[in-house]
Amino acid sequence: MTMSLWPDVKPEAARRLMHAAVQSFAAVGFHATTTRDIATAAGMSPAALYVHFPSKTALLFEISRSGHEQTLALVQDLATGDGTPTDKMRALVESFVAWHAREHTVARVVQYELDALPESEYLVVTGLRRRIEQAVRTLIAEGVRTGEFQVPDEKTAARAVLSLGIDVARWYTERARKTPRALGREYATLVLRMLGNSTID
Amino acid sequence: MTMSLWPDVKPEAARRLMHAAVQSFAAVGFHATTTRDIATAAGMSPAALYVHFPSKTALLFEISRSGHEQTLALVQDLATGDGTPTDKMRALVESFVAWHAREHTVARVVQYELDALPESEYLVVTGLRRRIEQAVRTLIAEGVRTGEFQVPDEKTAARAVLSLGIDVARWYTERARKTPRALGREYATLVLRMLGNSTID
Repeated sequence: MTMSLWPDVKPEAARRLMHAAVQSFAAVGFHATTTRDIATAAGMSPAALYVHFPSKTALLFEISRSGHEQTLALVQDLATGDGTPTDKMRALVESFVAWHAREHTVARVVQYELDALPESEYLVVTGLRRRIEQAVRTLIAEGVRTGEFQVPDEKTAARAVLSLGIDVARWYTERARKTPRALGREYATLVLRMLGNSTID
Repeated sequence: MTMSLWPDVKPEAARRLMHAAVQSFAAVGFHATTTRDIATAAGMSPAALYVHFPSKTALLFEISRSGHEQTLALVQDLATGDGTPTDKMRALVESFVAWHAREHTVARVVQYELDALPESEYLVVTGLRRRIEQAVRTLIAEGVRTGEFQVPDEKTAARAVLSLGIDVARWYTERARKTPRALGREYATLVLRMLGNSTID
């Protein structure tokens, strides 16, 4: 996990707490982690943690919100840039898959601990998720219009594209045979075929 | 979750404990679940639980082993039957995806709580996983030989096929727009295209 994940989080102590929280949530799950565990791993007292975050839930929300906002920015940026739908989809899948491989620890927390969020925070995150899915769906629709893509159901196809990337976080480790970049490139080819683009090797 | 998941587990009390364990592991994770929680949810005393399972870990192992063995049987059965590689892959993806949608609660435990297993039990389960992946890979290789499939890397393709199905357990709920069967059929079409079969609509 890279410390550059949360460049906007200040001060550095807050970033250190988020880092420690991700490690613990990923290792034993949100419910088995205490604020004391997180504070200790960050080299701080529990009281010092509360200066930055009112609760363990607030930490999870900040990790989840920030992870989803970064993903949304990446997906929207690549989906709406210049180039053909094929070019844009390739770039999107390459980045999305590489991110889930490289940041697999934080990605697991972001993807699998959603249900631990209280209702209002859950709704914020699912709102971001809907916008991510919508951006992919709009790009698929664009490719269908240009004749580059052909899919039975655009919503199912968008979900399958994201699913392939998200599931990388479950199995990827540093011992994997392929680098995040190489995996992203291969998955981009598989996705373009899945979307009915038969001009791809 | 259907109680028919573990037809071979006897007596019925042991099956009830596995059922309660799955619910709790899926809700709060393995580490935040106590044997008392499981026994209580199954309407038993903690002492009665130990008659059937020596520990919480033994319960997780039994759930995980049995889930993987059922999946392996399903995959091997469909991959080695009669028919073309295309027919067999279609049937395999339909069943695999439908199972992960229908049994999404137990599938989440089976797929996401692996790291909680001790070394020797972990090795048993990863052995089963390797055989599942190998069966899919052999079927892909068969399709490449007949000219029905064309993939850049058979190992990556096999992993992507399984990934699509596994990730269904993460997002599927009873409120989903599609039935497990309908979703399985759509995913089978997407997978066949991904494998380079361009004769599919």
